[in-house]
Amino acid sequence: MRTHSAVDVIRAKRDGHELRDDQIHWFLSAYTAGEVADEQASALLMAIFHHGLGPRELATWTDAMIRSGERLDLSAVPFPTVDKHSTGGVGDKISLPLCPLVAACGAAVPQLSGRGLGHTGGTLDKLESIAGFRTALTNEEFVGQLAEIGAAICAASGDLAPADRKLYALRDVTGTVESIPLIASSIMSKKIAEGTDALVLDVKTGEGAFMRDLDDARTLARTMVGIGEANGVRTTALITGMDAPLGLTAGNALEVRESLEVLEGGGPPDVVEVTLALAGEMLALAGIDADPAAALADGRAMDRWRRMVRAQGGDPDAPLPVAPLVEEVRADADGVVAAVAAMPVGVAAWRLGAGRARKEDPVSAGAGVVLRVAPGDTVSRGQVLAELHADDAAHMAAGAEAFAGAVRIGAVAPTPGPRVRERIAAR
Amino acid sequence: MRTHSAVDVIRAKRDGHELRDDQIHWFLSAYTAGEVADEQASALLMAIFHHGLGPRELATWTDAMIRSGERLDLSAVPFPTVDKHSTGGVGDKISLPLCPLVAACGAAVPQLSGRGLGHTGGTLDKLESIAGFRTALTNEEFVGQLAEIGAAICAASGDLAPADRKLYALRDVTGTVESIPLIASSIMSKKIAEGTDALVLDVKTGEGAFMRDLDDARTLARTMVGIGEANGVRTTALITGMDAPLGLTAGNALEVRESLEVLEGGGPPDVVEVTLALAGEMLALAGIDADPAAALADGRAMDRWRRMVRAQGGDPDAPLPVAPLVEEVRADADGVVAAVAAMPVGVAAWRLGAGRARKEDPVSAGAGVVLRVAPGDTVSRGQVLAELHADDAAHMAAGAEAFAGAVRIGAVAPTPGPRVRERIAAR
Repeated sequence: MRTHSAVDVIRAKRDGHELRDDQIHWFLSAYTAGEVADEQASALLMAIFHHGLGPRELATWTDAMIRSGERLDLSAVPFPTVDKHSTGGVGDKISLPLCPLVAACGAAVPQLSGRGLGHTGGTLDKLESIAGFRTALTNEEFVGQLAEIGAAICAASGDLAPADRKLYALRDVTGTVESIPLIASSIMSKKIAEGTDALVLDVKTGEGAFMRDLDDARTLARTMVGIGEANGVRTTALITGMDAPLGLTAGNALEVRESLEVLEGGGPPDVVEVTLALAGEMLALAGIDADPAAALADGRAMDRWRRMVRAQGGDPDAPLPVAPLVEEVRADADGVVAAVAAMPVGVAAWRLGAGRARKEDPVSAGAGVVLRVAPGDTVSRGQVLAELHADDAAHMAAGAEAFAGAVRIGAVAPTPGPRVRERIAAR
Repeated sequence: MRTHSAVDVIRAKRDGHELRDDQIHWFLSAYTAGEVADEQASALLMAIFHHGLGPRELATWTDAMIRSGERLDLSAVPFPTVDKHSTGGVGDKISLPLCPLVAACGAAVPQLSGRGLGHTGGTLDKLESIAGFRTALTNEEFVGQLAEIGAAICAASGDLAPADRKLYALRDVTGTVESIPLIASSIMSKKIAEGTDALVLDVKTGEGAFMRDLDDARTLARTMVGIGEANGVRTTALITGMDAPLGLTAGNALEVRESLEVLEGGGPPDVVEVTLALAGEMLALAGIDADPAAALADGRAMDRWRRMVRAQGGDPDAPLPVAPLVEEVRADADGVVAAVAAMPVGVAAWRLGAGRARKEDPVSAGAGVVLRVAPGDTVSRGQVLAELHADDAAHMAAGAEAFAGAVRIGAVAPTPGPRVRERIAAR
């Protein structure tokens, strides 16, 4: 009977029909329980890749993934809760200044975060470059810290959306990762299970992003906003550019250092722009009328950061790790920086040791890229364009090879648009 | 590395690209060896369901399935070899008279056959209703019998196209059965591995057939003919109607009895029509100029049948099994037989005990349906339309329920077309 039902569900989607709610709930529950086989789930995923999921199906699919595990109860937190999720980019350290900033303005940010994979970094890897910082919190610690400080960034427990965890591993080996409904429901199931009242999505677009194409980014953003609203989580999205890296650093401790500059009221303009834009969206969803720029300028955000780091066992005053080897990359011509390409910078940081190819690989805290120029800068031959940081010569060589061509020098200055391209809200 | 390659192959087909020959050979060989997982194979099958396989891909896919096992060597057979495959229908006993008939005309028919499943019967089940008949022959016995008698019908060994066996079981549980390239390559890999020089396909169309739609039947026929030619097997196809059952019987021993009538020069006209049409195609492909009708009329085909049965341990003179219970179905009105629907007759025979739902289930030798009227016959209320044969009351009740409505009585005689609708040959 079970096999027959699984085949019926697969055939329905295969033939382009809408799945009924009971079919979706049954399939995902039976799959999580091991009663539907991996080969049946992968056939359904491939059918979904081809036919998609409609808004109702997606809401139900996400709900079923959430129901496969526990949903955190944040009712003990005495502040409105609002989280942020980014689809991932190069140099995207925004969570680090953003979480304490929004907390300093009166909301609680229950941020369950992930690790880096491939050319994109992970927030947990970055935070672990801080001496003593613990990214594994119990649910009680997490909720307690949110109630006290309003800011917590830690790893999701295995009890949240286990169906998503199982499906994600399956998608990875069956060529079914690149499906907007599957990407959207995977992200949203984890974020909704986290218990947040509201959510702001940072959907990256451009050559360093998962969604290179603006139309795809828009579709993903709209899809996720729809899922959030259908599941009772107020959700908006900003589409932000990821052609160039965010800020001037890519690497774990290097990005923490740049985040501290932002929390001190400085930092690269694009990082500040995106941080303030996302903070503004989050505070609006939380119903809080506050000026985040002021909270950066007057030190409240930095104060909250220090409290969060201490609460998670870290020492905010400890020196950050530094890689022993530093090489400079120099301009081979006079001109103007026409572009800094996110992808080679991200791959270089990864190859230098900051990233990982498989999720069980270790990462280097100190390795990465520090850019010394930005698009539009005039440069002369021999001028330093970037520093590469690595723990050993083999990583340095691999990183240098990957970095080649990342900084493009031309004759004409580019006219870069704003980082924040569009805002997508529920209709 | 293996996983990466499997994902690359899946993604290529998923995105609608043609697979390279080396990709197909690697994937099927690694899958047969257990190095590519079922969930990866099912994802590829679902991608093939959506994008198909082009002629070159199909030829290679089929070749790779053949190469996964052994290919029989029939070079010791001193006659041209030619086989027939039917896509399956109700009352389709054609293999039984056809194989000895074609052998009597000078060709060898190396028929590896299957068992029934669902509403369609299987040649091996029918033959096993003959006392002593062995359907399991060694390769040596099979080739020896072909060299001596020119006719052998037995089960395929597990060494032929093991990739197909594994894929077929996977398709069954993953909703990927109904794909013309997958159906075509599955059939053709087994037939080509059997070692035959030539092959005639009987592709059924109509409500009792797997391909209900004539266009689908044509596509399947063309696809299989293309695969045969690409793999060096001369292949033609006849598309034959399967709206009504073939002949007047559906059931194992009942169909043997009707086949003996044909071999005696009698039998229902439609069974004779299809048998002679397929025999003509087979002899033409074998390059033999003979009149199969004469071989039926003068007893040469019957003689060859008796030699084949004896060679496989059967007693051609033993009485055939008879089911102990027989019930008559009578007309509830005066009129003319407008139609005899294949599907309810096939399901009735199955429920009466002649067929099986799962391939490990046993079948009854004597059970089945005997039709007493044909489309166009004038009938009066109370007249016997059919006999139902079963081993016990439970099967009888189930069969009677399934048979309801199989014979449709109307006011106007139908104008049935010929059984043989079209001929498809290589272009």
